Amino acid sequence: MKQAAAIRHALEELERMPGVGPKSAQRILHWLLTSDDSSAQRLAEAILEVKEAIHLCPRCHNYAQEDLCEVCGDAERDLGCICVVAEPRDIDAIERTGAYRGLYHVLGGVINPMEGVMPDDLNIADLIARLGAEDVREVLLATNPDVEGETTASYLARTIKPLGLTVTRLASGLPVGGELEYADEVTLARSIESRRTL
Amino acid sequence: MKQAAAIRHALEELERMPGVGPKSAQRILHWLLTSDDSSAQRLAEAILEVKEAIHLCPRCHNYAQEDLCEVCGDAERDLGCICVVAEPRDIDAIERTGAYRGLYHVLGGVINPMEGVMPDDLNIADLIARLGAEDVREVLLATNPDVEGETTASYLARTIKPLGLTVTRLASGLPVGGELEYADEVTLARSIESRRTL
Repeated sequence: MKQAAAIRHALEELERMPGVGPKSAQRILHWLLTSDDSSAQRLAEAILEVKEAIHLCPRCHNYAQEDLCEVCGDAERDLGCICVVAEPRDIDAIERTGAYRGLYHVLGGVINPMEGVMPDDLNIADLIARLGAEDVREVLLATNPDVEGETTASYLARTIKPLGLTVTRLASGLPVGGELEYADEVTLARSIESRRTL
Repeated sequence: MKQAAAIRHALEELERMPGVGPKSAQRILHWLLTSDDSSAQRLAEAILEVKEAIHLCPRCHNYAQEDLCEVCGDAERDLGCICVVAEPRDIDAIERTGAYRGLYHVLGGVINPMEGVMPDDLNIADLIARLGAEDVREVLLATNPDVEGETTASYLARTIKPLGLTVTRLASGLPVGGELEYADEVTLARSIESRRTL
C-alpha cells in the first residue's frame, strides 16, 4: 500500500502512544486532518508544554510544575500521614474522593520479580528517609489489591512497622452499589473476613 | 482535585482525540512524562508536519502530499474504473488487499438524513463531472454494507446508471474463514441470495 510519507510518519508516531493501535491511529489522523488548524497546533503545543514544564517532585515523586508538587506545596495538608502509591495517576484517583488530606509518596512501580522490578528499583529508600526526617505518625499503603500490589504492601509493612509507625492498608471488599451475586469469590471472601461490627 | 496547570491542559487536549477518554489520556500522559525527551518531541512534530503537508487530492479527495494523491499520481493505475468510498481510510483498507488497481473517489461521508447529511453535502457533483470528463467504464460502489452505506450506494447507482456506465457493488456474504454457526442472520441470508454457481 502506498501512502504519503507525512501520513505514514504521523501514523507511526501516533501508534507509539499506549492504547493506540493502527485503527485508533487512523481515526486520530482523520480527526487531525479534518478538524480546524488550531486543534493539531494546540495538541502538539500541549504535548511539548507538559514535557517541558513537568518534573518529579523531589519530596514525593508526584508530577510537579512548581518546585514541589501541588500536594506537597499545599500548607493545608496533614503532614502526619503519608499515603504510598505506585504511580502519580493513583494520587489523582485518591484526590478525587476528597477522603484523604495527608501527603503522598510515589514508588514509581510495584515489586514484580517476574519483570525484574525489585525493592531497590522503587523509591523506597527515600520513603524510609522521609519517615526519619518528617513528623509522620501513619503510613497508608495504597498499592492495588492485586498480587504485585499486595506483595509490595507486605514488604513495606515489614520494613516500616519496626520504626514504630502505624501502617494501614486500603480496605478490600464489595464495591459500593455492587451486588453479592456478581462479586468474585476472592472479593466476597475478603469482605466476609473484614466484616465490620455494626 | 488539584493538578498542575500543564498537566490539566495536556489531559484536556489529549482527551479531544477520538477514542481517547480520561483513562487513556492519563496513560498517554504518563508515557509522555516517563519516556525519553525525543518521544514527545517526535509526536508533536509528526502532528504538525502531517497537518502542514497533507491536503485533499483535487481529483479524488484522497489525502495527498504532492499535487495529486499517491493513487492518482501513479501512472500504472487502471483509469477506466473508479472505486467510490466514504472516507480516505477506506482506500487504505482496499489498497492493502492488492485486489484493486483502478482509481478512487472519496465522498467525504455517507447520506445520513438523521444527521442531516444529504447528497449535496458529499463529493457527488464532482464524481459525476469526473465520469463525464474521464474515460471511465466502471464505477465500483464501496461504501460500508450498513444502512447509510447501502442508501448511499443505491442513490449513486440510480444517478450513475443512466450515464450508461457499469455500476458494481462490493459483495456481501460470510467472512472468509468464518463459521455458519456464528454468522448473523442478515449476513447468512445475503450469502444465500448471492450464492455462486460452481
